[in-house]
Amino acid sequence: MSSSRKLVELFYDVVSPYSWLGFEVLCRYRTIWNLDLKLRPAFLGGVMNASGNRPPAVIPNKAVYMITDLNRLAQYFHIPLHQPGNPFEVMFEKGSLPAMRFLTAVAEKDTSGGDTVVEKVSRELWNRIWSTDQDITQPASFSEAGLKAGLSASEVEELINLAKSQPIKDRLKSTTQEAINYQAFGFPLIVCHVDGKPEVFFGSDRFELLAHCIGEKWLGPQPEKPFSKM
Amino acid sequence: MSSSRKLVELFYDVVSPYSWLGFEVLCRYRTIWNLDLKLRPAFLGGVMNASGNRPPAVIPNKAVYMITDLNRLAQYFHIPLHQPGNPFEVMFEKGSLPAMRFLTAVAEKDTSGGDTVVEKVSRELWNRIWSTDQDITQPASFSEAGLKAGLSASEVEELINLAKSQPIKDRLKSTTQEAINYQAFGFPLIVCHVDGKPEVFFGSDRFELLAHCIGEKWLGPQPEKPFSKM
Repeated sequence: MSSSRKLVELFYDVVSPYSWLGFEVLCRYRTIWNLDLKLRPAFLGGVMNASGNRPPAVIPNKAVYMITDLNRLAQYFHIPLHQPGNPFEVMFEKGSLPAMRFLTAVAEKDTSGGDTVVEKVSRELWNRIWSTDQDITQPASFSEAGLKAGLSASEVEELINLAKSQPIKDRLKSTTQEAINYQAFGFPLIVCHVDGKPEVFFGSDRFELLAHCIGEKWLGPQPEKPFSKM
Repeated sequence: MSSSRKLVELFYDVVSPYSWLGFEVLCRYRTIWNLDLKLRPAFLGGVMNASGNRPPAVIPNKAVYMITDLNRLAQYFHIPLHQPGNPFEVMFEKGSLPAMRFLTAVAEKDTSGGDTVVEKVSRELWNRIWSTDQDITQPASFSEAGLKAGLSASEVEELINLAKSQPIKDRLKSTTQEAINYQAFGFPLIVCHVDGKPEVFFGSDRFELLAHCIGEKWLGPQPEKPFSKM
């Protein structure tokens, strides 16, 4: 196994449950595979529009399958994912644009060097939408998620205001455009930089292959601490 | 690991390259996991129609991704898959109805007890369409595939005639309908019968999860002999 740090970018949107799986797996493997993991919150709606793709759930049989598939994967990967009461409303009517702008503001102010704050706030937002069936469209929701992630009340307020600014809107657009430039048609999109060349993986079901591409070994779900509290 | 034989059905169409991956993996794991593997040749076009699904390749970015993805998977799984010169013509214009009727006739006459002949002929058809870019719509093509699979000239002729009969057309429809009843929206569709309950998996990227569901362990690609000649 190589000892050099491997640059891996994860483009994701918290509206996407498969992105949550990909996010947790890559966070768990950050140390195991010695990854320089860059979290790239982006807007799935923009990617779907640009690529002309349709959400899988518009095909009834796919929607039915997704429920079973997500439940099995969540159990196998020890991720506390539970279907919201009305997934269609959550995914297609409410959407994630304000949430992803908020996360982009978090990314803008995250000076941890390892996307630590972005990681924590992303997880709290996923916990809301894909575990406890709570809103992720209102400022009060961002506030709760931010506080749970360890931010102070004043930091959260500043981020909520920042999220409405043009530079943050532009930054989210630009990150989304980067994913589109990698020919994204959905999320998660994982870009591994191998010998200076990007290897692009779509979805949360290519980790064994991804490991092979970066000269590492897939060791299965590797459950970790973050969810012991669940 | 359990010692009881596990009934697993694989619904597939030779027009589908991901089905080839699933087919080879399950054939390789037949002994390792003690599977009672039932090969169920069916018609993908019927499943797509019934479910209202569209082929992934109609989204340009998906088509581009599929090429990379299939190449990487084929290499990793040691399957001699190569893109045909004109995949769109092969998949959408020429199609696989006569080929799947021929395979259904093979299944009808396969008295090996372990789908041995169906397995060999399926592999030869996949080799034609997804490896050496040869036709799979004409009787001469079925004849070549059948002979390569070890059938005699007279057996092949009988099967080509049988493939045109109403009972074989009906059998293919009925197998396709079984897949639709499992809420298929594409192939491969893998149905594991676990404690009398069907666990349905779509695609060729859930083997680790499938292993977990049937109480077995995923051991990676497990390359085998069939392709040493390639």
